Amino acid sequence: MLVNFKRVTTLVSFIRRCSTLSKSLPELTKDRYPNIKRGDYAELNQNHLDYFHGLLGQNRVLSDPSDCEMYNIDFIKGVRGYSQCVLKPQTTEEVSKILSFCNQHRLAVCPQGGNTGLVGGSVPVFDEIVLSTSLMNNIISIDNISGVVVCEAGCILESLDDVLREKGLMMPLDLGAKGSCNIGGNVSTNAGGLRLLRYGNLHGSVLGIEAVKANGDVIDCLSTLKKDNTGYHLKHLFIGSEGTLGIVTKVAVHGPSKPKSLNLALLGLHSFENILQTYERAKNDLSEILSSCEMMDERSLDVVTSHLKLKSPIGDFPFYMVVETSGSNEKHDEEKLNAFLEGVMSEGIVADGTVTNEPGKMRAIWDLRERITEGLLHDGYLFKYDISLPIKEFYSLVPKMKERLGSDASRVSGYGHIGDGNIHLNISVPEFSPDILKKVEPYVYELTSTYKGSISAEHGVGFRKPPYIHYSKSENAISLMKDLKKMMDPNGILNPYKVLPS
Amino acid sequence: MLVNFKRVTTLVSFIRRCSTLSKSLPELTKDRYPNIKRGDYAELNQNHLDYFHGLLGQNRVLSDPSDCEMYNIDFIKGVRGYSQCVLKPQTTEEVSKILSFCNQHRLAVCPQGGNTGLVGGSVPVFDEIVLSTSLMNNIISIDNISGVVVCEAGCILESLDDVLREKGLMMPLDLGAKGSCNIGGNVSTNAGGLRLLRYGNLHGSVLGIEAVKANGDVIDCLSTLKKDNTGYHLKHLFIGSEGTLGIVTKVAVHGPSKPKSLNLALLGLHSFENILQTYERAKNDLSEILSSCEMMDERSLDVVTSHLKLKSPIGDFPFYMVVETSGSNEKHDEEKLNAFLEGVMSEGIVADGTVTNEPGKMRAIWDLRERITEGLLHDGYLFKYDISLPIKEFYSLVPKMKERLGSDASRVSGYGHIGDGNIHLNISVPEFSPDILKKVEPYVYELTSTYKGSISAEHGVGFRKPPYIHYSKSENAISLMKDLKKMMDPNGILNPYKVLPS
Repeated sequence: MLVNFKRVTTLVSFIRRCSTLSKSLPELTKDRYPNIKRGDYAELNQNHLDYFHGLLGQNRVLSDPSDCEMYNIDFIKGVRGYSQCVLKPQTTEEVSKILSFCNQHRLAVCPQGGNTGLVGGSVPVFDEIVLSTSLMNNIISIDNISGVVVCEAGCILESLDDVLREKGLMMPLDLGAKGSCNIGGNVSTNAGGLRLLRYGNLHGSVLGIEAVKANGDVIDCLSTLKKDNTGYHLKHLFIGSEGTLGIVTKVAVHGPSKPKSLNLALLGLHSFENILQTYERAKNDLSEILSSCEMMDERSLDVVTSHLKLKSPIGDFPFYMVVETSGSNEKHDEEKLNAFLEGVMSEGIVADGTVTNEPGKMRAIWDLRERITEGLLHDGYLFKYDISLPIKEFYSLVPKMKERLGSDASRVSGYGHIGDGNIHLNISVPEFSPDILKKVEPYVYELTSTYKGSISAEHGVGFRKPPYIHYSKSENAISLMKDLKKMMDPNGILNPYKVLPS
Repeated sequence: MLVNFKRVTTLVSFIRRCSTLSKSLPELTKDRYPNIKRGDYAELNQNHLDYFHGLLGQNRVLSDPSDCEMYNIDFIKGVRGYSQCVLKPQTTEEVSKILSFCNQHRLAVCPQGGNTGLVGGSVPVFDEIVLSTSLMNNIISIDNISGVVVCEAGCILESLDDVLREKGLMMPLDLGAKGSCNIGGNVSTNAGGLRLLRYGNLHGSVLGIEAVKANGDVIDCLSTLKKDNTGYHLKHLFIGSEGTLGIVTKVAVHGPSKPKSLNLALLGLHSFENILQTYERAKNDLSEILSSCEMMDERSLDVVTSHLKLKSPIGDFPFYMVVETSGSNEKHDEEKLNAFLEGVMSEGIVADGTVTNEPGKMRAIWDLRERITEGLLHDGYLFKYDISLPIKEFYSLVPKMKERLGSDASRVSGYGHIGDGNIHLNISVPEFSPDILKKVEPYVYELTSTYKGSISAEHGVGFRKPPYIHYSKSENAISLMKDLKKMMDPNGILNPYKVLPS
C-alpha cells in the first residue's frame, strides 16, 4: 500500500560544497603519488605573468597562493596541486591567446570549470596554470522553436536549466553537482546524470561545440542544427576528452520540452532482485514517460539521514529506488504510474513507497538521492568508483568489496543509475591509507573487467584512473588515443598527467 | 473532418532498386568530372589478385568486369567507377589483412555496404578496389534486457529490425533504403532517417564499434554499455566519416522497446505556414509519443502517384504531412492523437487527413513518403540536395530554385524531415547537363550558407560535395579533418576523393 508523503520536512537549500567539513588541506598530489613525475614544462616566471596581466588585466590573473588554493584542491579533497597562477579569460579570443602563448613557452595548463569532478581531472597535479572558465558564462541565444541553447562554457548547469524552464524547455542532463558544475565541464567529461535514461547522452544532445586547440586554433563547430553530416564529426573529439585535446569555449545544446506533468516515487525494496524486477516493470509500464530510475542501498541512504539529517518519508529497507515520470498529460501519466505501482506492490516486488507530484516533496526525495556524494564526505576519506556493469551484475561489487575489506572500511555503499547500468561504489575509511588502497585497486578494476564492465561510466579517467584504463580499453584503442593527443597537442600542454596512461 | 482510409489498395512490395529503369550506363566519373585526377596509387596486377585469392578463395574475389559493374555504379546512377576487383571478406581478420596489404602496396580501397548512398560515397571514382561488407552479416548477440544488438557491418537494416521486433525491440533508425542498406554503411554515414526526431542520432544510439584502420589495426571499441567514459570516445571517429578513417566491421546498437501502440496520419495542408503550425502543435499535443513528423510537397507526392502508381488516400493539396505516434498505451495515444487532430482540423490548420493503426494501411502511407527517392529516378537525371535549415526557412530553397531554373527543370520538389529541419531538395532534368549544374551549384550551397544551414544533413559529403564543404565547415575545422585523415590513413588509401576537399 502506498503511504502518503508526510514526514519530509522542509530542507535547507542544497549545499554542494561542504563548507562545514574539515578545513585541513589534503596532502599534495606530488607527495601522495611520488611515482608521477613532473613533465618537462617551463616554470612560471614574471615574464609569463606580465603577459597574462597585459592580456587579462590584474583582476583576472590570480597569483596569490591563498587566492589559488581552492583551484588546487578537488571537490572530494583527494588531490592537491600547487599552481601559482589562475587565469580567468572572458572570451574565446583570450583563451586562444593564452593557449598559443603557453604552447610557445611550454607552460602546462589545467582547464577548470566548476571543479566538481570526482577523478582529479580538474585540478593541477603539479604547478600547471589553471584556466578557469568561470567568467565565460553568457547565454548567447535560446531558440524556443528548435529548443537549442547556445552558451559559453562557464555557464552553470542549474542556471541554464532555470532559464530554459522559463521558456518551456529544460536541459537534457541533471546531476547532483548542478549548482556548481559548468556546462563546458559537463561536455568535456561527457557527464551522464539522472536523466540519461530518457534524454540520452551528450554525444546526442550537444549539437555544436567551439573549442580551442593547444596551439590556440579555434575550432568552430558551433552548429545549432539537429543534423549536419558535413565531414568528420569533430565535436565528439571534445566530448569526454577531459580538456586534453582542447578547451571547450562554447556549446549548443538541444533542450527537450519541459514536461507538463511530473511525478516522483520513492520505493523501499527487500532485495536487489526486486530492484531488477521493478526496473523491468517500470520500463514496460511507464515506457515513454519514464524519465529516471535510480537505486540506493541502505548504507547510501544512511549517509544523508545520518550526516545531513535529511528525513526519509518511508520506513527502513535494504534497498530504495527513485522512479520519475515526465509526460505531457497529467491524467495519462497518473494512470500509467498507478498501474505500475499497484502491480509492483500487489505482487510484493516493492515493499513500501510514496509518490508525489508536489514540487517541494519531489525536491526532498531527490535530495535523498542527490546529496549522497556530499554526505559521504563526512565519512572521512573516500575511495570512489564509478562503474558500468551489465545490469544483472550491477550490485555484485558491493558485497564482494564489503567482504574483502571487513573492518578496514567504515562503509561500503552502492547507489546509482540502474536504468543505465551505472553504479557508484563508495568505500569510506577514516583517512587515506595506502594499504587499503592496495586492497581495493586494482581488484575493483579486475572484477569490473571480468564482468565486461567499464571502469569509468560517467566520471571520466582524470588523474586517478589512467593506470587502469587498459581494463576497459584495448591496446590499439589506447594507441589511437595517444596518436590523437600527439596530433592535437604535440607539446602535451593540455591537462597533462590525465586520461592517457604514461 | 477526418476521412476514412479507403482508397489505398494493396501495394506491391517495396522495391528499393529500380530494376525497371533504363539499363543504360551512366558516364564514367573520370569523364564527367575531368578535373578530378587519379591519385598516385598502384594499379591492380596479377600478384595482388593472387594474394586476394589466397586469402578469400576464388568465389569472394570478383574480377570479371560484368560481375564488378553493379559495384561501380551508385543507386541514382550519377557516378560510375571502373574498379576491376571486388573483395568480399567474411571476418574482421580478413578485412584487416586486406587493408594491411593494400596499405603496403598503395592500393586504394572503396568500402561498400548496401550501395544506397546518395552522394557517390560508396562507389569507386577510378579503379579503387571495392571492399564489400555484404557477407559480414551475422547477428552476434541480442540482449533483451538492455536492448543491445551486436552485429556485423553487413547486416541489412530491415533484417535487423525484423529480428529485433520479434524480441519486443526495434532499431532506432528507419529509412527508405532499409531493405538494402547495411548497418555498417548507416553508421559510416551517420544515417538519419524517419525517426531521428524520437530516438536521436547514431552518435547516441551506437554503443560500440569495431573498425579497421588503413594499416590493418583493429580498433575494438565494441562496448555494449550505455555509459563508458574511459578515455577518448573513439567510436565517433568512425560515425559519419564515410569509410575514410577506417572500415566499420561490427557495431553495438541500443534498440528501444517496440511500441505497443502505433498510429499514422496523412494530412493535407494548404501552405508551408500550416506545416510549421502543425509541427508545433504535434510537438505540444503528442509530445513523448510523437515518433515521426514528415512533410512533402505536391510535386513529391506526384512522383509516387504518377511514376509508381501508388494511390493517395486523401485529396490534392499543395502540402502533405505524415505524423506517427508510438506509445505504450493505445487508449492514451488515441486520446492524445484525437485531441491533436481535432485541434488542427477545427482551426483549419490542416485541410484534410486520414489516420490509421492498421499495419497494411500504415505501410501504404509510409510508402507514399519513403518511395519518393525511388520514384524520382523515373524523372531522368536528378540533382539531389540534402539540406539542414532553421525550421522557418525549411522550404525557402524550393520556390527560389524553381524560379531560378524555370523550364530548365522538369520538376523541383521538396520533402523531408520537418521535425529535424532536414529537407530533400530534388531537381529533375531529362538528362545530366553541365549548364544546369552551373545554375544550381554553388547557388544552392551559397543560399544554404546564408541561412546558416548545412549542405549535408544526413547523406554525407561523399564524392559530390567535398568542393562545397567550406559552406558548412570553417577553415580550421577542415584543417583538423585533414590532420585526422593524415594521422589515421597516411597513404590515403581509404575511400579517396571523398569527404575531404583537395
